Formats: sequence, structure tokens, C-alpha cells
Amino acid sequence: MSQPAAAAQPVRRQLSLDDYVAGVRAGDRAILARAITLVESRRAEHRALARDLLQAVLPFTGAAQRVGITGVPGVGKSTFIEALGGLLTGQGHKVAVLAIDPSSSRSGGSILGDKTRMETLSQNPAAFIRPSPSAGRLGGVTRMTRETMLLCEAAGYDVILVETVGAGQNETVVADMVDFFLVLMLPGAGDELQGIKKGVLELADMIAVNKCDGDNDHRAGAAVREYKSALHILNPASPTWSPPVVPCSGLTGQGLKALWEHIDRHRRLMHDSGERTARRQDQMVRWMRSMLEDGLMERFQNHPQVAHTLPDMESQVAQGTLAPSLAVDHLLATFTGQE
Amino acid sequence: MSQPAAAAQPVRRQLSLDDYVAGVRAGDRAILARAITLVESRRAEHRALARDLLQAVLPFTGAAQRVGITGVPGVGKSTFIEALGGLLTGQGHKVAVLAIDPSSSRSGGSILGDKTRMETLSQNPAAFIRPSPSAGRLGGVTRMTRETMLLCEAAGYDVILVETVGAGQNETVVADMVDFFLVLMLPGAGDELQGIKKGVLELADMIAVNKCDGDNDHRAGAAVREYKSALHILNPASPTWSPPVVPCSGLTGQGLKALWEHIDRHRRLMHDSGERTARRQDQMVRWMRSMLEDGLMERFQNHPQVAHTLPDMESQVAQGTLAPSLAVDHLLATFTGQE
Repeated sequence: MSQPAAAAQPVRRQLSLDDYVAGVRAGDRAILARAITLVESRRAEHRALARDLLQAVLPFTGAAQRVGITGVPGVGKSTFIEALGGLLTGQGHKVAVLAIDPSSSRSGGSILGDKTRMETLSQNPAAFIRPSPSAGRLGGVTRMTRETMLLCEAAGYDVILVETVGAGQNETVVADMVDFFLVLMLPGAGDELQGIKKGVLELADMIAVNKCDGDNDHRAGAAVREYKSALHILNPASPTWSPPVVPCSGLTGQGLKALWEHIDRHRRLMHDSGERTARRQDQMVRWMRSMLEDGLMERFQNHPQVAHTLPDMESQVAQGTLAPSLAVDHLLATFTGQE
Repeated sequence: MSQPAAAAQPVRRQLSLDDYVAGVRAGDRAILARAITLVESRRAEHRALARDLLQAVLPFTGAAQRVGITGVPGVGKSTFIEALGGLLTGQGHKVAVLAIDPSSSRSGGSILGDKTRMETLSQNPAAFIRPSPSAGRLGGVTRMTRETMLLCEAAGYDVILVETVGAGQNETVVADMVDFFLVLMLPGAGDELQGIKKGVLELADMIAVNKCDGDNDHRAGAAVREYKSALHILNPASPTWSPPVVPCSGLTGQGLKALWEHIDRHRRLMHDSGERTARRQDQMVRWMRSMLEDGLMERFQNHPQVAHTLPDMESQVAQGTLAPSLAVDHLLATFTGQE
């Protein structure tokens, strides 16, 4: 097989840190896209530049409303986001749509990867759509998405929608990086409650019953009541916020304005009570700690002698022939060279 | 204030490793109690001896049925365990009752600390009751309780009941060290469902509706139906096991025999399907990994330069003046001496 000649590749100028900062701050979409690619790179020199870039734009981040959106496949997420994005850009917002889906690396694709899924929004100059990074581990994907969010904020996007698919852990991760967590459901509660993964409803700041249009229209009221009662069982009431359940349709746009007004009211209430700032500070520190844990574990597992011993010790522990605490002490001593 | 003279303390002979192993294996309660104290000690020489002891008794562990029991305060856990323990010792079992409650260190007391709570069982020669270790961190308490469980198994106890109080994280930890997780509830579902912490019902292998006696007797049927429907919403059906909901009374002993038959049936089914072995191997490996993580983090935090820098960096990250990934890279380089 013949390789394409190197000259056939478009030559892209190396960008300096200043180029990146200026381009991102000016809202230059091409440079923003390259900055995100930089943040997603594993190469050491890219990592170093990405770190400096993030530090440089940090003062210009944090102004956006960050909204997580989830729902089982078939709930109509793309159509919903396309319609909501259109409504918000029409109101003068700049909207960035990101995604978290660590499993996507397996299929090679990713949610949002197929831009035709949001054909109108992807051509909207006030919207920026970025597919999920196709990295393997959840920790890595989380870091990239959080850093992408910061870059988009520095580029002037004031609404960040983070999409994910229902797989339990993803939802927790997304809920932990946003101000508001929205769960999409379908009319016809019984079966749907089973489809949604454990604990996801407990994270919800609101449930939107999507596809309340056409034939479904008359079932909307019953569905809303059923989800309200499910939320009542699952979520203890908070003094500041009771998660509303609203009917809507991504297809017709019905209910989307009212839905966003709830999100806006949540933002004001949480801002005034100080909970928004507290939640974000808490998110940042917990994020840092989880990166520290991942980084420590990575260095531990890459330690040559540990890597050599670990599999055998794990198997002995599983078989019940080696006490776990003995294995742990031995491995930690190996790692810190204190044997 | 005068200190009691040292001579007033009973002089206890130092036990050798062989003394401990022989005593535990012989079911000597006094030596078992001292072995558990050894496992709970933080002194380096105790830790080393405890490790060797656990390694030595490891071949004699694993035969017990391990049952976790939780429920909100007021659900009648002590009375229930006292009655169940009495029933089981009457059937020829040897029963150990342990507890996990990391918060207990604050109040100075602990669940099970007050032995009068289980007056009859605590005087039963076939039962062994050990209060929750009064250590601070959940990781430490978990290790001590798991190791205590192994010691009790080596001493011939074939039923281990691990009690905990409803605080979310505790339940997950207990469910991860037992074969069967039992949730106690009260008749009168609505309010109680709110009192139990998030996710706890999802861990349940069975719900026992306690206090189905006297005035409550006629409410038992309705309560059982309500919990069954809640479980149906929360827990996807498994081919091997559907969590039953059973009425019982710790006070009168009603329903306890049927309850234990469910647990026994679960043991047989899980044994035959191979899930019991797989679950235990998985538990051991995950326990080892979590101890590795804790140990790494402890060494990291105790690193003098890290300890010096960390609080300031966390505060800068919270304030949004320092990018988390920059802080993490700096701290990890400090720890591994690669700056």
C-alpha cells in the first residue's frame, strides 16, 4: 500500500502559546478547535503547552451556565439539543456542546461524532459542537472534557451543554462538572424507569419528558405525574430547589422555553444562596484530588518492579493464598524503594 | 489528678505468633479478642505481627456465611440481631457479630459498644460480639473489620453478621465484604423510603420488614407489597436471585426462621452457580486495590514537601487562580523527586 505523500497534508503553522491564547480569547473557532486537540494530546510537549494555555485562560473562565444532559438511547437527545441550542442562540447566547462517552473509543466513533446528527446547529455560527474525545479511561476523558469546557468559556461561550449516554458512572462524572443536571425521559414511565441506570435520577436537577408531541401528547400529563412521584421517593427535598418535571418536544420545540426558564431560575437561586460558588469550588478541589489519585496510581503501575510483581500478587490474593495487607505492604515498599 | 499506678494494670503476657495462631484456631475467646486488638493497632510492630498472623490463618478462613445488616436508627437492629443470633446458635451455628461505623470515633462510643444492647447474645458461649473499631477513616475501619472477620472465621465462627448504620458509604463498604446484604425496614413504607440513604435499597439481597408484631401486624402485608414494588423499580431482576421482602419481628422472633432459609437458599444458589466464589475473589482484589490507593495517598500526603505545598495549592485551585492539572503535575513531580 502506498502512503500519501507528506506534501499532500496541509501544512499547519505551529502556534505559540500567545497565538493560542489570543485566538481562543478572540473566539476564533479554528484555533479553539486546535486548542482542544492540544488538550486531548498525550504527547509530553503538547501536555506542557496545554497546561500553560489553561493557566493563561483561567481568569476568563467560569461565566457560563454549565448544563449536563443525559438520557437512554432513543430518548431523542440530538434533536433536543439541536432545538435547545437553536432557541438559546436565538436569545443571543453562544452555545458549546460537548460530550462524554469513554466507551466510544471501542467503536472508533463517538456520540456527537456524526455531525449530521445536529445538522442545523453545527452550521450555526453561535454554536460550537465538539465530539467526545476518543480516549480510553474515564479519568482521562473527564480531564479533557473539563479542560475543553474551560477553553470554550474563555472563547466566550456562555452556555455549555455536556451530553452523555446513560451508563451510571458517566452521569456521576458529568453531574460533577456542571451547575445543572438534566435527565431526558420518555412518556410511559414504567418501562423507562428501568432503562435509566441506577442513581441517575438521584442526580437530576430536572426531568424533561421529551417527545411530548403527536400521539404522545395526551400521555404527557400522566408521565409527568409518575416521574414526579418517582423523584419524590428518590430525592430528599432541598430548601433551595425541588427538581421539576416538565414536558417538552425536541421535534416541535414545545416546552423548551419554559424548560430553560427553570434552568435560569436555578442559576439565580444558587448564585444568591452562594451554593453555586461553593459547588464549583468543591468540584475543582475534588477534580484535583481525583487527578492526583489517578496520577499516583499510574506512576505506581508503571514502576518496573511493581508492574512485574502486581499480576502474580493479585492472583494469589484472589485465590486466598496471600493476605491482601501483606501484598499491599510489599508492593508499597517496592514502589518507594524502602525494602 | 493522680494517675492509676502501673502496677494496678493486670500484667498480660506477650503472645508470640504461634500463641496467637494456636489460640485463635482453638476458638479461645480471650486470644481472639487480643488478636483483633492487634489488628486494630497502629503501632508498627503490631502491624507486622498482625500481618503474619493473618497470613498464617488465611487457609482456615472463608467457610462462613457473611451477612451484612443495615437499617435506620429505630428500626430495631439490636433486638433483631439478638433474636437471629439466638436462633442460629440454637441451630448449632457459631455466630460473630461485628460492626462498621467510622463516625463512632467522634462520639467516643460506637454501635455495639454498649453490650447491654444485646444482653442475652453477649453471654451466649456460641456468640462473639465485637464493637466497631473506633478509628477515624473509613478505609482503616474497613480493613480492620475485614481482618476481624477472617480471624473469627479461623476461630470457627460460621456465621458473620456485620452491622452498620445507614450512612450510604458504610453500606457500600459492608455490601462489598459480605455474601448477602440485608436491609431492615419498618412497616409504613412512604416515610421510611425517604429515611434510608440513597442507593442502599439497590444493594439489598433481601428486605426484612421488622417490628411486624402487635399493632403493626395488620400493616405488614401492605408494607411488604410496597417494598416489593419499590425493589421492582430499583433493582433489575437477576436470573439467579430476586430480592425477597419478608415480614418479621425481632421482638417475638416471628419470621426469623423463614428469613434465614432465604439466606441459606441464596448461599446454595450462589455456590452452585459459581457466583459466590467469583464475588469473593472480586471482593478480595478490589479490597487490595483500594488499600493500595489509600497507601499511596497516605505516603503522598506524608511526603514533607507535598504536605507543605498541598493546602496552598488546593486553595488556589478552589479560588480558580491555579489550573488543577498544573497543580497536579507539580505535586506529583515533587513526590517522585523529578523536578
